[in-house]
Amino acid sequence: MCTAATYKTKDFYFGRTLDYEFSYGDEVTVTPRNYKIPFRYMGEMESHYAMIGMAYVAEDYPLYYDAVNEKGVGMAGLNFVGNAVYQEVDEAEDGKENVCQYELIPWILSQCASVREVRELLSRMNLVGTPFSEQLPAAQLHWIIADEKEAITVEPMKDGLKVHENPVGVLTNNPPFEQQMFQLNNYMHLSPRQPENHFSEKLNLTAYSRGMGAMGLPGDLSSASRFAKVAFTKMNAKSGDSELESISQFFHILGSVDQQRGCCEVADGKYEITLYTSCCNASKGIYYYTTYENHQITAVDLYREELDGTKLFRYPLITGEQIRWQN
Amino acid sequence: MCTAATYKTKDFYFGRTLDYEFSYGDEVTVTPRNYKIPFRYMGEMESHYAMIGMAYVAEDYPLYYDAVNEKGVGMAGLNFVGNAVYQEVDEAEDGKENVCQYELIPWILSQCASVREVRELLSRMNLVGTPFSEQLPAAQLHWIIADEKEAITVEPMKDGLKVHENPVGVLTNNPPFEQQMFQLNNYMHLSPRQPENHFSEKLNLTAYSRGMGAMGLPGDLSSASRFAKVAFTKMNAKSGDSELESISQFFHILGSVDQQRGCCEVADGKYEITLYTSCCNASKGIYYYTTYENHQITAVDLYREELDGTKLFRYPLITGEQIRWQN
Amino acid sequence: MCTAATYKTKDFYFGRTLDYEFSYGDEVTVTPRNYKIPFRYMGEMESHYAMIGMAYVAEDYPLYYDAVNEKGVGMAGLNFVGNAVYQEVDEAEDGKENVCQYELIPWILSQCASVREVRELLSRMNLVGTPFSEQLPAAQLHWIIADEKEAITVEPMKDGLKVHENPVGVLTNNPPFEQQMFQLNNYMHLSPRQPENHFSEKLNLTAYSRGMGAMGLPGDLSSASRFAKVAFTKMNAKSGDSELESISQFFHILGSVDQQRGCCEVADGKYEITLYTSCCNASKGIYYYTTYENHQITAVDLYREELDGTKLFRYPLITGEQIRWQN
Amino acid sequence: MCTAATYKTKDFYFGRTLDYEFSYGDEVTVTPRNYKIPFRYMGEMESHYAMIGMAYVAEDYPLYYDAVNEKGVGMAGLNFVGNAVYQEVDEAEDGKENVCQYELIPWILSQCASVREVRELLSRMNLVGTPFSEQLPAAQLHWIIADEKEAITVEPMKDGLKVHENPVGVLTNNPPFEQQMFQLNNYMHLSPRQPENHFSEKLNLTAYSRGMGAMGLPGDLSSASRFAKVAFTKMNAKSGDSELESISQFFHILGSVDQQRGCCEVADGKYEITLYTSCCNASKGIYYYTTYENHQITAVDLYREELDGTKLFRYPLITGEQIRWQN
Repeated sequence: MCTAATYKTKDFYFGRTLDYEFSYGDEVTVTPRNYKIPFRYMGEMESHYAMIGMAYVAEDYPLYYDAVNEKGVGMAGLNFVGNAVYQEVDEAEDGKENVCQYELIPWILSQCASVREVRELLSRMNLVGTPFSEQLPAAQLHWIIADEKEAITVEPMKDGLKVHENPVGVLTNNPPFEQQMFQLNNYMHLSPRQPENHFSEKLNLTAYSRGMGAMGLPGDLSSASRFAKVAFTKMNAKSGDSELESISQFFHILGSVDQQRGCCEVADGKYEITLYTSCCNASKGIYYYTTYENHQITAVDLYREELDGTKLFRYPLITGEQIRWQN
Repeated sequence: MCTAATYKTKDFYFGRTLDYEFSYGDEVTVTPRNYKIPFRYMGEMESHYAMIGMAYVAEDYPLYYDAVNEKGVGMAGLNFVGNAVYQEVDEAEDGKENVCQYELIPWILSQCASVREVRELLSRMNLVGTPFSEQLPAAQLHWIIADEKEAITVEPMKDGLKVHENPVGVLTNNPPFEQQMFQLNNYMHLSPRQPENHFSEKLNLTAYSRGMGAMGLPGDLSSASRFAKVAFTKMNAKSGDSELESISQFFHILGSVDQQRGCCEVADGKYEITLYTSCCNASKGIYYYTTYENHQITAVDLYREELDGTKLFRYPLITGEQIRWQN
Repeated sequence: MCTAATYKTKDFYFGRTLDYEFSYGDEVTVTPRNYKIPFRYMGEMESHYAMIGMAYVAEDYPLYYDAVNEKGVGMAGLNFVGNAVYQEVDEAEDGKENVCQYELIPWILSQCASVREVRELLSRMNLVGTPFSEQLPAAQLHWIIADEKEAITVEPMKDGLKVHENPVGVLTNNPPFEQQMFQLNNYMHLSPRQPENHFSEKLNLTAYSRGMGAMGLPGDLSSASRFAKVAFTKMNAKSGDSELESISQFFHILGSVDQQRGCCEVADGKYEITLYTSCCNASKGIYYYTTYENHQITAVDLYREELDGTKLFRYPLITGEQIRWQN
Repeated sequence: MCTAATYKTKDFYFGRTLDYEFSYGDEVTVTPRNYKIPFRYMGEMESHYAMIGMAYVAEDYPLYYDAVNEKGVGMAGLNFVGNAVYQEVDEAEDGKENVCQYELIPWILSQCASVREVRELLSRMNLVGTPFSEQLPAAQLHWIIADEKEAITVEPMKDGLKVHENPVGVLTNNPPFEQQMFQLNNYMHLSPRQPENHFSEKLNLTAYSRGMGAMGLPGDLSSASRFAKVAFTKMNAKSGDSELESISQFFHILGSVDQQRGCCEVADGKYEITLYTSCCNASKGIYYYTTYENHQITAVDLYREELDGTKLFRYPLITGEQIRWQN
């Protein structure tokens, strides 16, 4: 499963973990402004905003897991298995804009300079389940879309496409977002400060350890528990606002829901792990990432590429620990 | 507070987090075999096993937080505030060996080639509270000591020095170790696998997310919750047995109890964070670490120093993210 | 707040707790077949099924909290504050049947001999918020309706009247029923049997107490926690099938979510308590109850009244402990 | 397993549940002042304080589970399996007073007019494991002893007889009492009042139900969870101070940890239930009880017996619901 989060200091940061038991072969991929995007039902888009993100590139098409465009809008798709329902193609002449599930990230990021514009675009869109190819059936997903001002969650449900304000700026997987947000009410008493004794004034109860104010916060790897844990961590996170301090803190936020190999067995001897963790400075177009086997932060800068180009720029992930020796 | 853990693949690994709101100025410090260790009541030790670990060096004396010796014995001191009680100096002629609290790590690691030998040494030792200096009063600590075969916990209590087998190979802080171990019974049903429905066979309950088998595992930063979380993570951890796979997995294990800045407020605007995380290959004498602001793993190799030397070798920590640029 | 439950042995039992900080003056009330029921928009019903239940009788009208009719259909209204939304009166000629919120129990129980018939009736009904009187504004409620074969939950929501199958046969308050049911997935591993060690086969964890298989079941008095607790208790309940064994067990089931005075402070010095607990043998028309201050079970038998009568039969609750002295 | 509690209004109340899968045949038993108590090692006591309580009477000897004497001292023995360790008989001439485990209640209650006197008596006592008979081996127990001023817990441990102040006035079973008290620290933030939002001031979290202030309180039937639940309930309990209000409230306090048949399976098809619940007005010598199958409160009054008598007065429990019919 996965976790996404936003973070704001001087700049705006957007990132996610991708948790799964194997990788399709992910690459940090820059789509420059003049790369022609072929939309299945909407024709070919000749020029658009540039974007950078993590993608599996199939037939030269960037199937983005998460990306940020040059206007500072970030977006990530996360598993939503059992809940995601896509629509049939709307064939009416004055019908809605038919966008395939796998096209949603480029469709949005190519055109929208803000979440306000995203809402507008979504309102006239019909999200359909046409798969990319026979080998790549439609994934059941929901999305978080954010700019520095606000975040929304987009969920294709049985009764239509839902767009929710996302005041906490995080997303995991099931259950649907409204229910995840509702469950946070159960944790409202949790605090980064030490607890006070409200059990009984006649008992001499004490905090025997630091950090007891958040007792009750879950620590397992299920999507509901990760939502609560990362929400608490993100909402209470403090850091300096320099670039290095910000991204360091961001990786600590998502690190709070890291999936360790062995703790989530999805089939005999198969374990879901956090394949990669990303943190994109959406304001500056820098995509940082770590992988399960490489703790060092690696970076790709959108603006070091030819943004007016026509071809994808692709960077395979650097995996394997990059140890620095001091002696 | 802090967390320590052991891990065994082909080699034996030992490490810890040090969580606090400020640093004394820590250095990876190698004590070579002929560095003369001045013990307060036991005289000067002229030669001994070499050791490597994290220390605050005061007056050329290595005040180790954690270290490993050349025989593969590892040891770490962790806060035990409110429970640690040190003894008075035993002045009887045939009395026990008086060792100061701050000397315990060098006292043990300088002489013991195994935990079996540690037990022996502890049995004739009297742990006293004499401080290192007026500026550095005695810290209230307990210790985990381990080799590749076994781990023990050493706790100076009101009724004497307790030595407990530590079958889980982890340590945090309060409450005392026996109570921490006992509390694990409350989590015995947790599993890395999906839960089965035992609630009622008449209800169609389902696991709506991966990772639900460990629901109930705590996720706050208190020492009792960190104990349960890291114990579950460590006991279920899986990795390849190469050096890089092993240390990568080890940092993921301790990452499960990472303390993020903002989530544990210890005074107005002061936050406890994981200052550093260490992982020592005790079999090969390589000390790896990360710091809160540097995700890259840095390493110091015991055997690249002159082990028969007489002076400390000191490596100030590399802090600040070491970003690797791909473009 | 409140809790309702069903139970089946030889006969079918239906009951509830009513939790609040004061009582309106409740009476066990029998509505005989020929008591004329004046419906606000649907005219006067001259004859109908007889029913027995707990009501506040206002202007000779039985405002039932819960009741059972002579056909064995039981029904209870429970608080649903913040979620219940009633409709405007449907004034179309071929419109739906307009039924006021306070009329729902008599409307259903007067006409339906089974839950199947209830579904039918609900499908052509429009539930409106017209209050009984100025002094008695419309309560925000949802309902559980059950016969010996099935149970349903009826919830008037913003987007219409929802009718849910209720496989667990219990109801509390917020959040909406589907969400309560979903949350039971989080408890699927709980069991009346002792837990097995799935934490780690390398640790010798043991069950140090009986009853540990349900660790994780909540024990506070919130509606979400009561739902989980009473669902577990009801689904695992065992008893003989005689009348006395059945009702004894039923009161134990609802006793599991009893609200003790002092544990739920709703305003300074005001405490919500379980004002009464009822258990109706729906098959035989016997209404049993206890009150907070009277642990003895008191009973009223529908069939000891003149069922073809025209006037309500009313039995004020017996409160105050009825102690039996043995010497 | 079992739960005991104290409660103070105008008078002092002391009671317990006895939870088990079968009954030995319990009777409310009055031991008058001149009933000769044969102590195994301490000779026969000819006259003493009178006492009333629940006992299994074997060979005319009252094996009390719980009792109260005419001086207002109450005492109950609860299972302490795996922890209770009894001593060998002290055969020294000036040795301690050897008292058998099964004699402890009569030994204490026959002689002590206050807990202060109990402490004194315990200090010169040696608790031995000699069984009552071959058929009745020594039970592994610990005890709560209380008067209106204070309560203590007495635990026979491997390293001797422990006497702990019991500020909460409750006792269940494992783990040992000090650990149970320590665990209450984990619940210190729980409150009968609604929770406040400390999670994040930027999120609009709300209490969607009454009773959410105690979220985190456990609701399963294990001894550790019952300790927390009953402690919270007792410490926050409010009632009028009349006799009926007090005992009503007391039964609600212990009702909070009632064990329902089916929820604690101790062997295939065998279920632990709350066989009886008692509440003794220790000030007035009135023993009230309910049984699993009889919700009505039944009472026996110490002072209605001939207190200077020589023979036990025995009242078999009234079981089976005592229904009161209103029509």
